[in-house]
Amino acid sequence: MHQVLISDPTLRDGSHAVRHQITFEHMMLYAELAEAAGIPILEVGHGNGLGASSLQLGKSLVSDAHMLIGCREKLVNTKLGIHVIPGFATINKDLKNAIDIGVNVVRVASHCTEADITKCHIEYARERDVEAFGVLMMSHMASATKLLEEAKKMQSYGAQAVILMDSAGAYFPSDVSERITRLVHDLEIPVGFHAHNNLGMAIANSITALESGAVILDGTIRGFGAGAGNAQLELLVAVLERLGYKTGIDLYKLLDAADIAESHFAKVPYVSSTNIVSGLSGVFSGFAKPVERISREFGLDPKDIFFELGRRKVVAGQEDIILEVAVSLSQKSGE
Amino acid sequence: MHQVLISDPTLRDGSHAVRHQITFEHMMLYAELAEAAGIPILEVGHGNGLGASSLQLGKSLVSDAHMLIGCREKLVNTKLGIHVIPGFATINKDLKNAIDIGVNVVRVASHCTEADITKCHIEYARERDVEAFGVLMMSHMASATKLLEEAKKMQSYGAQAVILMDSAGAYFPSDVSERITRLVHDLEIPVGFHAHNNLGMAIANSITALESGAVILDGTIRGFGAGAGNAQLELLVAVLERLGYKTGIDLYKLLDAADIAESHFAKVPYVSSTNIVSGLSGVFSGFAKPVERISREFGLDPKDIFFELGRRKVVAGQEDIILEVAVSLSQKSGE
Repeated sequence: MHQVLISDPTLRDGSHAVRHQITFEHMMLYAELAEAAGIPILEVGHGNGLGASSLQLGKSLVSDAHMLIGCREKLVNTKLGIHVIPGFATINKDLKNAIDIGVNVVRVASHCTEADITKCHIEYARERDVEAFGVLMMSHMASATKLLEEAKKMQSYGAQAVILMDSAGAYFPSDVSERITRLVHDLEIPVGFHAHNNLGMAIANSITALESGAVILDGTIRGFGAGAGNAQLELLVAVLERLGYKTGIDLYKLLDAADIAESHFAKVPYVSSTNIVSGLSGVFSGFAKPVERISREFGLDPKDIFFELGRRKVVAGQEDIILEVAVSLSQKSGE
Repeated sequence: MHQVLISDPTLRDGSHAVRHQITFEHMMLYAELAEAAGIPILEVGHGNGLGASSLQLGKSLVSDAHMLIGCREKLVNTKLGIHVIPGFATINKDLKNAIDIGVNVVRVASHCTEADITKCHIEYARERDVEAFGVLMMSHMASATKLLEEAKKMQSYGAQAVILMDSAGAYFPSDVSERITRLVHDLEIPVGFHAHNNLGMAIANSITALESGAVILDGTIRGFGAGAGNAQLELLVAVLERLGYKTGIDLYKLLDAADIAESHFAKVPYVSSTNIVSGLSGVFSGFAKPVERISREFGLDPKDIFFELGRRKVVAGQEDIILEVAVSLSQKSGE
């Protein structure tokens, strides 16, 4: 049974669940818990990553620099990671500052068919001698062949691993095994998987990814994250132990960390009716909060908005289309 | 793709989550929603089934007769089901009354190695011309061979289906496929599966059961049920539709029903740290509430109680052992 590298985006994907309002104190609390439990990588930031705090996507309560400096001081064995979407994060300002602060792992992400935009950020991270992973978001929207093509680009830019994200929680195990198997077979670098739980498959899909050859998994405490949440980290680690995988994490301390995080800041997600429709429609989980808000404002059923967003095949970053869809649905219902 | 028969124990397994205190009004509300969404079977009762309301297991807020008469009046196309554990439910009083009221489906349950005790109840139900299913609880504690032997007994008593319950939420898909495949192959009656979510596998295991030949699945609204909850019904139906199975349920109405049930009475469960340990230890999910209460009283970690209960291989109905374990752990920690 192989070793699994766990990367924990509780303080990044979890931000989506609270509109990027995690306090500095709670970040410091969680960084201490993560270090104590032996979590290998802790990812920190705005829900949409470095430099994404903005009026459109939501302002972070704590600045990137402030949270990274704080976590840097708390972490010794746990590596400090960031999620970087080129376009939101500039190289000369955001990425340079983050690496200057002491970030260890830079995960450069793009929509699953847009790996070209990750080239300069990945190359810069490698030049600065930090680890660089490539991340393909909303990966259910591309075939295994297309994902392999994009992942190979990331590999050629110097990425040391490639992570497939099921950003909409739309995968079934057979989808995961087809794609991961293909990447593992044809890439020279390790492959990872990042699950969401919209269809209740986050844990099952994560295990399938490992069985298909992946060696990196993402998970957050209590599943704290966008939409129906991520793979629930402490549950994932318990299941992995039972199945004989090694993570290096202290399960008992991790279960306690989950209880503490829940009592302080980690809102426990569940699969709501709109999350189900979001998963069925294959829409980015990060849209849940704005869809709920906008549907309330317009007196619409959020399920109808999600079905329409699915038909339009929107991707992360196109939050403005939610409003457009709401206006169009209101006009229709008023006709 | 085959038709799946959905049986919904929201008003029975859900009782565990609120210590059997669902109000009559909420039962009537949910019965109306179930009928409107086209749910085939609605199971109603105390968490431990007919006649189980007691000081030791918890008193029901509403009597068996009252809730069954109420639901009988609300249901037309949806069949009225009950969970019957011989020992709690007598034939001459409890079962006779329930059938007189107009129950359609009698699910007679025993611990997975004790099918003998279901004989008289199954035979009585068949004599009275209502449907009778056999239910093997805590089925993870027996091998496929042993389960088949017990299920064959139920078949010989006249059971028209056999349901395997993963009462502790301890199964992985490979466990499910091994057992269900064996039963489907060697029984002449339909096979069903009842999942719990302690290891996050309720939906994945339910699908695996179907792929292994099962044709009956249990699920509750929002997963409302013992411990980490059941397979989440509206999510299960959405996933089944996506995979091409037919349930006859109106998904859109079911999603709305879930929202309404949640806002009125259905507490949404999640996989707590103690639920995880319960699943890992293979302890009955219905123990979650009493374990939490007793661990608070004794100042113990509920995780430690669950691990010890797992070592002692306790089964449902042995709630008194929780106290014994708590006393023994307190004495140890005081030494």
